[in-house]
Amino acid sequence: MAVSLENNAPHQVVIVGGGFGGLYAAKALNTANVNVTLIDKRNFHLFQPLLYQVATGTLSPSDISAPLRSVFSKSKNTKVLLGEVNDIDPKAQQVILGDEVVPYDTLIVATGANHSYFGKDNWKEVAPGLKTVEDAIEMRRRIFGAFEAAEKETNPEKRRAFLTFVIVGGGPTGVELAGAIAELAYKTLKEDFRNINTSETKILLLQGGDRILPHIAPELSASAAVSLQKLGVELHTHTRVTNIEDDIVTFKQGDELTEIASKTILWAAGVQGSGMGKILAESTGVNCDLSGRVIVEPDLSIKGYDNIFVIGDLANFSHQDGKPLPGVAPVAKQEGEYVGKLIQRRLQGDTLPSFHYNHVGSLAMIGQNLAVVDLGFLKLTGFLAWAFWLLVHIYFLIEFDTKLLVVFQWAWNYITRNRRSRLITGREAFVQAKTQQSSVPALQLARNQQNQI
Amino acid sequence: MAVSLENNAPHQVVIVGGGFGGLYAAKALNTANVNVTLIDKRNFHLFQPLLYQVATGTLSPSDISAPLRSVFSKSKNTKVLLGEVNDIDPKAQQVILGDEVVPYDTLIVATGANHSYFGKDNWKEVAPGLKTVEDAIEMRRRIFGAFEAAEKETNPEKRRAFLTFVIVGGGPTGVELAGAIAELAYKTLKEDFRNINTSETKILLLQGGDRILPHIAPELSASAAVSLQKLGVELHTHTRVTNIEDDIVTFKQGDELTEIASKTILWAAGVQGSGMGKILAESTGVNCDLSGRVIVEPDLSIKGYDNIFVIGDLANFSHQDGKPLPGVAPVAKQEGEYVGKLIQRRLQGDTLPSFHYNHVGSLAMIGQNLAVVDLGFLKLTGFLAWAFWLLVHIYFLIEFDTKLLVVFQWAWNYITRNRRSRLITGREAFVQAKTQQSSVPALQLARNQQNQI
Repeated sequence: MAVSLENNAPHQVVIVGGGFGGLYAAKALNTANVNVTLIDKRNFHLFQPLLYQVATGTLSPSDISAPLRSVFSKSKNTKVLLGEVNDIDPKAQQVILGDEVVPYDTLIVATGANHSYFGKDNWKEVAPGLKTVEDAIEMRRRIFGAFEAAEKETNPEKRRAFLTFVIVGGGPTGVELAGAIAELAYKTLKEDFRNINTSETKILLLQGGDRILPHIAPELSASAAVSLQKLGVELHTHTRVTNIEDDIVTFKQGDELTEIASKTILWAAGVQGSGMGKILAESTGVNCDLSGRVIVEPDLSIKGYDNIFVIGDLANFSHQDGKPLPGVAPVAKQEGEYVGKLIQRRLQGDTLPSFHYNHVGSLAMIGQNLAVVDLGFLKLTGFLAWAFWLLVHIYFLIEFDTKLLVVFQWAWNYITRNRRSRLITGREAFVQAKTQQSSVPALQLARNQQNQI
Repeated sequence: MAVSLENNAPHQVVIVGGGFGGLYAAKALNTANVNVTLIDKRNFHLFQPLLYQVATGTLSPSDISAPLRSVFSKSKNTKVLLGEVNDIDPKAQQVILGDEVVPYDTLIVATGANHSYFGKDNWKEVAPGLKTVEDAIEMRRRIFGAFEAAEKETNPEKRRAFLTFVIVGGGPTGVELAGAIAELAYKTLKEDFRNINTSETKILLLQGGDRILPHIAPELSASAAVSLQKLGVELHTHTRVTNIEDDIVTFKQGDELTEIASKTILWAAGVQGSGMGKILAESTGVNCDLSGRVIVEPDLSIKGYDNIFVIGDLANFSHQDGKPLPGVAPVAKQEGEYVGKLIQRRLQGDTLPSFHYNHVGSLAMIGQNLAVVDLGFLKLTGFLAWAFWLLVHIYFLIEFDTKLLVVFQWAWNYITRNRRSRLITGREAFVQAKTQQSSVPALQLARNQQNQI
């Protein structure tokens, strides 16, 4: 089944992936004389940088999502196609989705990255990561479920394991999760339980390198560490997880091995390029790096195919300072905009200089009134950084129709210190201490609603 | 494992179920010299009357939920316990949750109702109902997924089946769903698709009786029918579904049998008392009606046990005009408040007259600016009714900390005609025409996030 094309149709651009890269590429082509098909598995764009706020109960999934069809409702040259790309045929210039074939003149691949467990794929189940809405809801279920299980647990040792949270990875996601869980345990939930004292909660942040937030200036990273510790987070640098089994995390610091019992282990460590990298490598012969990212040319195309571009977290662009650009939203956004512009220039018989990433700054949220901002020429901490973080995110959320709501919600949560979105949904309606992380089939309950309470 | 009780502890009230009945009973006991344990399977109270707005993409689950612990955070005599009650021992005065035993002096059972498929339990999978957050998310997935599948479908007949929605049951939920889907198809989504024309959508509302909204005055019910038909809903009264199979709904109107192909069949027809009714019947010998509701005494207690009360949708209270009170939020609320008050009176050695439901009115929302309100002395339709409906719901939402947000969101959606919460999540990231209603294990994807788009 081929998607029908008009005769003498304009240049066909197919974009795979509706994250920041794909979204901004499509937006850049909005008024161009091209037909755009944006393919995504999901019907919405997700503002991933705020996903940790869903996982910790401050925001709802729809607060940080924009339906792709409504984003492109007015762009009559853009078609949104829900589906999963299984293969690419670069000779015939088409992508294959099951039994459907979509032809392209130019292809943009922006399918992002997945978690990497460094070969320990069995950790995935016990230490979930945070990439999708479902990931966030599962994390939320585990975090709030752990407090519920602790409330019911009478064995002090088991109770301690329920009140111990281990976060693996000290990048922005790990830091933001640790900070948010600390505020939850030590502030928000303080009055809510009767049998447990949530201030006994233990939060460990394990970082492989010598400091958290390695992408920002050392003095800011040190300030973030102090802020986290003040919030109550136990920080372990130079630390590698060697085993996760039976609710026991084993980690190594130098030669010292430590074991800690924890029912809630969250993964914020490694990423690897999505499966499309492999598909591209097989079909075009392009090289991938060790993290599965596609090595791209200075114009973000791939070797041998100047009409195939890879952008965002899936791309390894190392033409700026020899190091690959980081997998963050601003990189993906600028890459998408660049490729959209390049396509238009080419159609006009023109060219564009190589891609250049304009680094604006790095930021990370730690907690209320606590953040770090590194703009190179300006370094902020504390309340100022927090306010700046807020402003930057509001600016980015301008792409969403929900921006006002999200801001309103933030303000609301800020004033009330409440977590209204702390529903335990999805897998199990309630948590039983013994089965919390068992292999109960996910969402079994969705088919099993008729229970008696 | 017994929940520890202090010696000389005050009167123990156990409430099973945190819906309107249980919530208001607990609130009524807030300042009383009793200990309250509120048991629920979920960690949140759900404002069920607005669940259809989650199912149709206007609100998020957390907009209409309040975490039980935060509702009772300040009520130091109230303990929230997450769990599922498996049995009741009225002699020993305790409820059993797995291996946990909770003793009570007074027990209030408020576990509500489930769907009833009138013995056709195999319809449950193909025609989901709307009682829980998961139900609403599943409905939302099916509704928005159907438009997506239609967009991809090239066979006109199959496409028509994707664009046909059949709603079974013409009570408030059925009417509200039909109205919301009509607005979605004919207004909100109009510009969003490229291959289909969403105004070709067919929406059928099937009602067994002679009119929709049988609980309100006939003239209002007629007005609602006209409004629905103007919106584009095809209304069939005197109609019973005789079969649902292979995406074909068969219904009977008089002697005439009609078959219609539909990929989205929604159930808003029957309810039956939750499983706790059966548990009560077995342990106390109390009688249930044909819908599984517990027959209660004039003071809402059950025969032979003046310390066990049944309230809300699970109760059959027929002492007012011979007919059981309807299963709506105001009834549950007033019953909960009554029992809370009665318990306090009894502890003071006092009594309270029999329960009397103070019927304020009935309302149903049809669409923007369209509702019907029946206050007995006053009957409203159109915009006035809509505004009234809004005010009443705002008033009720005062129990929630989210009230302002919800109002803000309504206003926002009203102005923008947008459905920001139309995420297709949970079961499958995208919809394939052929597998939409297949037996793919629910939320399989939650464990299978690593796909390549």
